[in-house]
Formats: sequence, C-alpha cells, structure tokens
Amino acid sequence: MPDFRNIVFVVGVLLLFLAAMMVLPLAVSLYYGDGDTPAFVWSLLITAAVGGGLTLMRRKSKDIGLREGFAVVALSWASAALAGALPFCISGAIPSFTDSLFESMSGFTTTGASILGAHNPVETMPHGILFWRSMTHWLGGMGIILLSLAVLPMLGVGGMQLFRAEVPGPTKDKLTPRIKNTAEILWLVYLGISVLEAVLLWLGGMSVFDSACHTFGTMATGGFSTHSESIAAFHSRYIEYVIILFMFIAGTNFALHYRFMFKGQVDTYWKSREFRFYLFLIVISTVLMLGYNLSTRPGIGCETAFRESMFQVVSIMTTTGYGTADWEIWGSFPQVLLVLLMIVGGMAGSTGGGVKVVRIQLLLSQVRIELRRLIHPQVIIPMKIGQQVIDDSIVSIVLAFLLAFGLLLGGATTLLALMGIDMTTAFGASIACLSNIGPGLGGVGPADNYGWLPAAAKWLLLFLMMLGRLEIFTVLVLFSGSFWRR
Amino acid sequence: MPDFRNIVFVVGVLLLFLAAMMVLPLAVSLYYGDGDTPAFVWSLLITAAVGGGLTLMRRKSKDIGLREGFAVVALSWASAALAGALPFCISGAIPSFTDSLFESMSGFTTTGASILGAHNPVETMPHGILFWRSMTHWLGGMGIILLSLAVLPMLGVGGMQLFRAEVPGPTKDKLTPRIKNTAEILWLVYLGISVLEAVLLWLGGMSVFDSACHTFGTMATGGFSTHSESIAAFHSRYIEYVIILFMFIAGTNFALHYRFMFKGQVDTYWKSREFRFYLFLIVISTVLMLGYNLSTRPGIGCETAFRESMFQVVSIMTTTGYGTADWEIWGSFPQVLLVLLMIVGGMAGSTGGGVKVVRIQLLLSQVRIELRRLIHPQVIIPMKIGQQVIDDSIVSIVLAFLLAFGLLLGGATTLLALMGIDMTTAFGASIACLSNIGPGLGGVGPADNYGWLPAAAKWLLLFLMMLGRLEIFTVLVLFSGSFWRR
Repeated sequence: MPDFRNIVFVVGVLLLFLAAMMVLPLAVSLYYGDGDTPAFVWSLLITAAVGGGLTLMRRKSKDIGLREGFAVVALSWASAALAGALPFCISGAIPSFTDSLFESMSGFTTTGASILGAHNPVETMPHGILFWRSMTHWLGGMGIILLSLAVLPMLGVGGMQLFRAEVPGPTKDKLTPRIKNTAEILWLVYLGISVLEAVLLWLGGMSVFDSACHTFGTMATGGFSTHSESIAAFHSRYIEYVIILFMFIAGTNFALHYRFMFKGQVDTYWKSREFRFYLFLIVISTVLMLGYNLSTRPGIGCETAFRESMFQVVSIMTTTGYGTADWEIWGSFPQVLLVLLMIVGGMAGSTGGGVKVVRIQLLLSQVRIELRRLIHPQVIIPMKIGQQVIDDSIVSIVLAFLLAFGLLLGGATTLLALMGIDMTTAFGASIACLSNIGPGLGGVGPADNYGWLPAAAKWLLLFLMMLGRLEIFTVLVLFSGSFWRR
Repeated sequence: MPDFRNIVFVVGVLLLFLAAMMVLPLAVSLYYGDGDTPAFVWSLLITAAVGGGLTLMRRKSKDIGLREGFAVVALSWASAALAGALPFCISGAIPSFTDSLFESMSGFTTTGASILGAHNPVETMPHGILFWRSMTHWLGGMGIILLSLAVLPMLGVGGMQLFRAEVPGPTKDKLTPRIKNTAEILWLVYLGISVLEAVLLWLGGMSVFDSACHTFGTMATGGFSTHSESIAAFHSRYIEYVIILFMFIAGTNFALHYRFMFKGQVDTYWKSREFRFYLFLIVISTVLMLGYNLSTRPGIGCETAFRESMFQVVSIMTTTGYGTADWEIWGSFPQVLLVLLMIVGGMAGSTGGGVKVVRIQLLLSQVRIELRRLIHPQVIIPMKIGQQVIDDSIVSIVLAFLLAFGLLLGGATTLLALMGIDMTTAFGASIACLSNIGPGLGGVGPADNYGWLPAAAKWLLLFLMMLGRLEIFTVLVLFSGSFWRR
C-alpha cells in the first residue's frame, strides 16, 4: 500500500500553485470585462481552499517512494484537470461538467481536442476563459518536461531512463533536490523560448492576447486556438512559418535546448541520433506530401503547397494539432501518412506526445537484431543506439510500451464503436487522444470537434489522453495488484 | 552465402510433387469436359520438366543449414505459387499473369483473396480450374502444418519453438528424418479430418465436387468457394454449422488433434492454455456480435442471429474468410471487432494465419510483468505460460514479431494509399493479406474482390500474403545483410 499522506501533500501544493496561476486569467477577464471574472474568483478560492486543506496533512517523512511516485503523477494530472475545469463550468461558458473536464484534461495533457465547435464557437467565449484554456496547455507542458526528463526516468517507466536530462544538479541520493534543480533549469529554457515565440508572433501582427494564447498552444504542442479556423484565421505566411518553427522546437528534447542555450553546444542537436531521425521523418514526410499536393492539386503554387504540407506534417508529428488546411479532403495518402506520424509523435523529453521517435528507432533496431540472431543464433548481439548499449530490461519495457499502446488503441476503438461511432471516427478519436494530438479522422477530423460525442465517449477519451500523456504504464500500474499489495 | 545447390534440389522435389498433384484437377477436367484439359497437361509437363531439371543438381551433402532452411521455405512458396498459376494462365480462365499469380499465391498461402468477381464470376470457370484453385489451399495448408510444427521451430523463427509438435520421432540430431516423421503423422491427421468434413458436407446435400472444394478451403482456412455468394449459396443451416465446426478445428493446433486422435488424450485441448484463450475469444466475440445483431436488426430471429454471428466470427478469426453475410453493412462495432480478430488469427500450429493467439497471450503477460517490475524493480520475474517458463530470447523475438507485423501493416497501407486507394480499403487489403484472411474492408470487403486493384497493388499484396504466411521473419531475413555475408 502506498503512503497516501505524502501524495496528498504534493497534490495540495500543486493545487495552491494552480490557484496562484489563476490570477493571470483573472487579470485578463478584468481587462476585457466579458463577465467571467466571478468564475475565476470562485475557481481560485475553491482550488486554494482544497489545496490548502490537503497540505495540512503533514508528511511523515520527506522521501517519496516508488509507489507514491506513480500515484503522485497520476493524481496530479487528474487534480489539475478537475481544478482547470472549474472556470469553464462556473462561468457557464461550457455548461456541462463532462465537457468542461474534457476541455481541461485536453488542455493539461497538451492534447488540444476540443468540444467547442459550430454551435459554441471559440469566438463567442470570454477572453479570460480562452486565456485560461490555452494556459492549461502551457502549464501541462511544464509538467511534461519535468515528468519526462526527471520524474519518469527515476520511476523506470517506458524506458524513459534513456532520455534522462543530463543536466547538472546535486549528486546526492535524495531525489527531491535534484528534481527541483532540473525543473528550474528546464523551465527557464521553456519560458525563454516561449517569450521569443510570443514576441515573434506579436511582430507578425497578432494581438498580445492572441500571441500569448498561441504561444501556449505551440510550446506545449497543444493546439487550442482562439479562432475556429485555427492558424488559417490569420492569413499570414510569416505567422505560419513562425508556428512551424516553434512546433518543431517544442517537439525536440528540451535537454538539447538546454545544452545549446546554456552551454553553447551547437552540435548537440546533430549529435543526437533521435534528433536526426526526427528531422529525417519530418523532411521525408514533407517532401512526399509536397509531391502529392503538387500532383493532385493543379495550380496550387509551389510555396503554398510547401507551406501547407510542412505545416500539417510538423503540426501532426509534434502532436500539436494546429491546422491551416483540412487534410481530410486531400485524399487517401496524406491521411495514411499523417496517421503514421500521429503514432510516432515527437522526441522523448519534448512536450510532444505519441510513442516518441526514439522508441520507433529502438523498435527498428530490435527487428534488425532479431534478423541477425536468426542467422547467428549463438552470437550475443547487444542493442545499441549510437555508441550507447541499451540494457535488455529497457528494450523489453520499450517493446511492451509499444504493444500496450497498440492494445489501448484497439480497445478504445472497439469501445467507441460499441457506442455506435463509425469505425474511422472511433479509430481517429482514439489515436488523436492517446497520442495527445487533437484532430483525428472522420467525425473528429481537422475541420470537426468532439462536442457531438456521447458523454461516455468523452470520459473514455479523456482517460485515454491521460494514459497517453503519462506514458501509459504510470497510470496502468495503479490498476495492478502489485501496486496495492503490501 | 547459403549453398544454393541443396536449396534448388528441394525446390525441384517440391515441383515434381506438385506436378503429380496436378493429375487430380486433370482428371476433374476430363470428367467435366469444360475444355481446360490441355492447360493441365501443359502445366503438369512444364512443372515436371522444371522440377526434374532442378533435382539433377546433386546435393553436396544431405544436411541443410540454417540459411538454406530460410531460403528453402521462401523459395518453396514462391515456386509453388508460380507453378500453381500455370493452369489459370494457360487455360485462359485468368488471362493476366499477375492475376493468375495473385490467385495462386492466395491459394498456397491459404489466404483466399480472389480477383474473380462480377465481371468473371467463379460460376463461369471450368471445373478443373476451380478444383485446382481450391486444391492449392489444401496443399498450402499441408505446407503450413509442416512449417509451423516442424521447420520453423528449428529455424527459431518468431518464437515458434514454443509450439513445437511434441510428436514422437527419431531423436537423432539429423533434422531430415524427424521432419519427415512429424510430417507424415500430422498429414494423416489433416487428411483424416478432411475426409470426415467432405463426407459430412456431402451428406448435407453438396455435390462431391463442391464438398471436396469446400473441404480444401475450410481445412486450410483458405476461403475460396465455387460460388460467388460463398457458403450462403447453399442455403443450408446444416452446411453452415458443419463449416463453422471445421473452421474451428482447422484454426486449432494440429499437434492437439494428433494427441487426441492417436493417443486418445481427450483433455489435451483443455490442458492447452492457448486453446482455452482461443475458445474464450470466439465465445466472447460471438456473444457480443449476437447481442449487437439482436439489438440492431429487429425481427432477425435468435437462431439466424446466432448462426450468422458465430459464422463470421469463426471465419474471420480462423482467417478462413468464408461468408454467409456482408458484415460490412452491419455497422461499426462488428467491423472493428472483426478487424481485431483478423489481427489475432488462429492458434499456432493450425492452418490459420494472423499473429496467432499464443503471441497475444505472451504480449498480455509481458505487459503484466512490466507493471510488476515497475513496483518491484529488484525482483526477477520470469515469463511463464502456464507452468512453462519462457526464455527471454523467445519473449524478445515474439515481441519483435508483433511489432514487425505492425510495421508491415503501416507500410503496406501507406504504399496502397500512394497508389490512390482509399484509406479503409488500403488498410483492409493489407490486414486481410498479411493475416491470410481474404475479405478485408471497403473496396475489398466481404462482398467485393481484388480484381479491380492496379497491378502494383496486387504484387504488393501477394508479397504480403507470403510474408504473413511464412511468419514474416523467414522472408525478411533473406533481405538482411547477415544472410548473404560469409
């Protein structure tokens, strides 16, 4: 049995932090005066009160064990999503609790799947609500960077040991100060790049409000926009290229950005095999998509075809989900290609979702190794990524992760189909939520939204978002017998 | 470099055997007098001449090494498909060479995907041709039983060591006599069950010709029929239940049938964990499908709903592909459920395709083990199926197999989409051929055929059938550097 007192304390601190963060959308709501101020005051007070109450549970010791680690991670995202739903619900902007929670979970998991659509377009929402909606992305992104580069490697989830941030920190055995140190440095990187993007977007003609919201959405590879047409609403090539660049940056391991920004190691990117493969996949996909668009859409023009192709490829592969075109009407090949990129996702240690580029590399290496083993059954062939030998136990958990991903995808598609949702939509919604992308296929494609789905489907999908975002095993382990046994 | 002289000799013997087998359809063609007799005479002569020529290459030694083993398996299926295509092509029944080879490969891989359809219905084909078409299934099934229970375990492909036939045989180290012994016993089982089915179908009112052809299709989990409407054409509940039973039997490990029939071990089925899971999946899927059909198709009647549900579930899961209903119009849930069953497939050691039930069990165990490892990182947890401890190297190749299956599925879908085929059809054709089922989704669904696809798609799909049928790695290894290096 895990010790719940420690867990509850950490969740309490998180809620106090979120309450403090709600001051920002509160300020936005006061500035624009759309009538959503009371909702933020109430949300802030409730979150602070619950958070404060939880922190009163004194910790028995300062150490957090393995089981408590898993519980803290899962409960943190669940609590954040609940707190984040309060402003949507209380303001009446999203009257249904299920919808509010869906939107908030979609925000904190940096998914970007939205229930807002034709009947309740984002344009009719109060500014404070939209700001908070985008801000949940950015806060979720902070959490993910911390999680993937500091917490999960320690918990041994999904082979994340591979992607540990090699950031200097106290080498003492206590985990807490090291996590704190790593977090501070990485958040500084995250904040720095965010400020740069916001300034560049503002220079391109976006309002301060829009540039803040879209920076939140980009840097977290989230995808919530303040316009129904997403990035296409701005009709600006400059803005589209800026967003492409920053989606690409957000899909890159933040430990590399740290080494570049703080140590001046320019070659750190090229030295990373995962980065080279990430770049390769984006380039090859863009080229294929460009060729397809040029040959099937006569008169489109090279620059437009290039920009549209690259935007959708980078947006989907980094699992951001911003759109400048409805690729569902482009034809069969773009759909299949983008679905494959949805599964791949961004780099480990980025804010991107999916199974991560490095796991695909490891899978390809494993298939190659098994082929060699067939010919040379007596020879021991170690798994390597570059010069680094990968331990068998890590290979094994990475393969198990990939297969668990497949099982969840199949299971969720079946359950959605059982609710009467057509096969393409059921699959599209499952992959889009599990990989934390947002737009899927069919009825939840790039030109659609999730509002029309039955409530049961929304609950399933928001659980799927959390599973995907927390590298599956972190959540699944809570449902295993071993977790609860003494 | 493998020694090609041995390989060529074995392929020569196989061709001589096939030439001898062609006497049967030749006799059928003489009896019915549809004008296809010359085609069989020519095919027989060509096959015998080529086979005889190849056997003249004397063997250097009698031993066949590991590399030669892989090459023999792959070349055997490729040569059989080529020889099998001769009667289709020469008779003019299927004028195009690509189509003839597609049909023949589909036969020998026990897939059952056909290019015959509305424009060239099976009913217009000569009897000899139809007999040969169905017979390629049965011969392919013989090959698969030998392959999965005797050859692949020795080659170490895809963890097939797990499913080795525990059939008595000389315990000498030489492989050849053991394979021969195992093969003879298992083929006796295969033949015995086939005769039983043919008699039961004949008693149900089928002609001798139809009962032979449908027995070939059932026992090999193939799916070619002599009627455009498949089994629905017979309008007989009795025949449908007989086919359900024998598809189920054909999807079961033949080593279990051997133990039951030759040793009288009735409990051998229930003792097999894989058999219990195979049965469980069929029962649960039938119940779900039945419930769905009863609730969505008012007035259908319990027996009809039960029979239709069970038939499609057993037909798809055993990868036979016979049909009594167009489940594509049933709705979303039946489609998704059947697609999942397509991936699972039959038991290892059966004539069924797919990834095999035991590999899914191993995958589920692996996910459970990884969850336990997260909580107890210091404890060594062995992988077990029942009481049997599974070696790490087998776990690793089984997981790699599952992932390679996924990679091929994604890759083939992409290539088909690139040829302009819609996404659902591209995915459906890929899974139906890789799992050796036959009917897929969309344009190649249960009411459609493969005739309309472009030639490039047919070549890709026939290669996919061979990959799937030969447990992927057997074929992939031929493309690896290690195979050709000294």
